[in-house]
Amino acid sequence: MIQTIVLKDRPEGKPTVSDFEFLTDESDITIKKGEILLETVYVSVDPYLRGRMSDAKSYIPSFELNKPVHSGVIAKVLESENEKFKGGEFVSGMLDWKTKQVSNGEGLLKVDENKAPLSAYLGILGMTGLTAYLGLTQIGKPKAGETLVVSGAAGAVGSVVGQIGKLLGLTVIGIAGTDEKIEMLKTKFGFDAGINYNTSKDIKAAIAKAAPNGVDIYFDNVGGSISDAVLFNINKFARLIICGAISLYNSIELPQSVSVQPFLIKNSALMQGFIVSNYADKFPEAMKELSTWLAEDKLAYTETVVNGFENIPTAFIDLFEGKNKGKMIVKI
Amino acid sequence: MIQTIVLKDRPEGKPTVSDFEFLTDESDITIKKGEILLETVYVSVDPYLRGRMSDAKSYIPSFELNKPVHSGVIAKVLESENEKFKGGEFVSGMLDWKTKQVSNGEGLLKVDENKAPLSAYLGILGMTGLTAYLGLTQIGKPKAGETLVVSGAAGAVGSVVGQIGKLLGLTVIGIAGTDEKIEMLKTKFGFDAGINYNTSKDIKAAIAKAAPNGVDIYFDNVGGSISDAVLFNINKFARLIICGAISLYNSIELPQSVSVQPFLIKNSALMQGFIVSNYADKFPEAMKELSTWLAEDKLAYTETVVNGFENIPTAFIDLFEGKNKGKMIVKI
Repeated sequence: MIQTIVLKDRPEGKPTVSDFEFLTDESDITIKKGEILLETVYVSVDPYLRGRMSDAKSYIPSFELNKPVHSGVIAKVLESENEKFKGGEFVSGMLDWKTKQVSNGEGLLKVDENKAPLSAYLGILGMTGLTAYLGLTQIGKPKAGETLVVSGAAGAVGSVVGQIGKLLGLTVIGIAGTDEKIEMLKTKFGFDAGINYNTSKDIKAAIAKAAPNGVDIYFDNVGGSISDAVLFNINKFARLIICGAISLYNSIELPQSVSVQPFLIKNSALMQGFIVSNYADKFPEAMKELSTWLAEDKLAYTETVVNGFENIPTAFIDLFEGKNKGKMIVKI
Repeated sequence: MIQTIVLKDRPEGKPTVSDFEFLTDESDITIKKGEILLETVYVSVDPYLRGRMSDAKSYIPSFELNKPVHSGVIAKVLESENEKFKGGEFVSGMLDWKTKQVSNGEGLLKVDENKAPLSAYLGILGMTGLTAYLGLTQIGKPKAGETLVVSGAAGAVGSVVGQIGKLLGLTVIGIAGTDEKIEMLKTKFGFDAGINYNTSKDIKAAIAKAAPNGVDIYFDNVGGSISDAVLFNINKFARLIICGAISLYNSIELPQSVSVQPFLIKNSALMQGFIVSNYADKFPEAMKELSTWLAEDKLAYTETVVNGFENIPTAFIDLFEGKNKGKMIVKI
């Protein structure tokens, strides 16, 4: 039996469980020459998937209605008629939300469970780690001694960004939504300071206090009022890496923010939309750095692991409530 | 007798004549060794001066209250005790709003009235031309065949940006506020299309129609709702040169706009605040290009010349009403 999750309706505002439908297929699977049969082991749920559920023009095509959703997946090779793969191996790739599926192997990478836990290949050694490393280095161009602010700092990408910032000699300030997360930023991830946007009365003033020399680099995962508050604190030649805007993704009305233009002009500052896939030529360099730091125990990471294929939609929806710490993963 | 204009009050919202004060000094001027005595010939009034009249943190210091305002000026050397200058020569530089003043010559450039009209050194061969050329080339990185949108297109900088865009093989669309200006963009400056933001019911749709292949480069002089409308039309890897925000400079409330972050992410787009003074190392190259084009009659320029030292404040205030076509200059 194969279970599949398809997109039934395009979400309006926050996604709900009823936007998804579970289908069951009892037919047998036989693979042809060149194909492999995969069993899903881990599924990554990520905020950017929300964008693909809309039908607005975007950098990647929208999901089709009544077709399987897909995202980063770790799968086990059950059977192989493809000489590049053997039964029992594990692969990572963009795959459907199915318990089992057939692939021709294209776009799949083998992953080694002896080098790192399998789930790490969806996070610190996957798109999460690459996004953090390449966003910070390619656009942020950090120089030791500068000040970095990270929003969504306790999230999968944010917590890695902050740690890389420290490894590169920056002062790192994280913004997150609970005291527990702030504590984790400082104790587990080595951030210099943290700001709880839910309890801080004046985020702008809190940033000014935590960053007395101003903000040189802002790694933005959230958009909205938190990013507005950062603008007031940027330095001349600041670099703002626009990686995500989770606070705006579910907005039905067109979101409004403080006008950025005057801040950019008076600081000769840069804002750059960042998508990791544009930097594929830098993946090997980035993987090398990340693997080395991980092996040297210099990068900690946190996962929130939810169990059960049936809980994929809920785990995805919970991202928008900030219920995850670090990378949100579903174990099948 | 020397007349001086000082900043009496920091404007709230739109500047008024009463924010300025005229002082008269009857004392004789004698210059010391190394000094020159200058007589002001032309004064440049520019939107960016509004920012210097506030006391907010900016890229250049605020003007001090009860001190002379200064801006780009062309002056005649009346007397010289400085071996680098001779009586009768003309210079350009950042000088006070005074009918006569003493200088040590620092930061002044000699200008040649035989090569171009003196006022051109405040415009097409001055900061205006350098801003247009360097903003477009250094940040816009234009490739022939791309589409450029210019706001404030009939202004001093905008009209030059559009012409350079055409010289570099771009499709050029200008946005301005009267039909007369739109006509001028097309007939005098060679723009491919123009949009009158005052009569267009839907600027976003008008841009989509004028730029069927989308917008690759946006040279932004205005900010606000016009820039919001451009965002909906940008292409992947678009470059947005944030050069001015005249629609926001007089705002007393903190201006709000459409949130830019989702547009930047989905298009991997760049917004960069631009100040020409950061590119001083490129001035010689830019001046060479601009002078060559001007000599070859490939660049037209428009000036609005107001007569009389006493009219400097009014000429400055009129910028915010769009009363100028091209560079606004006061002839003393």
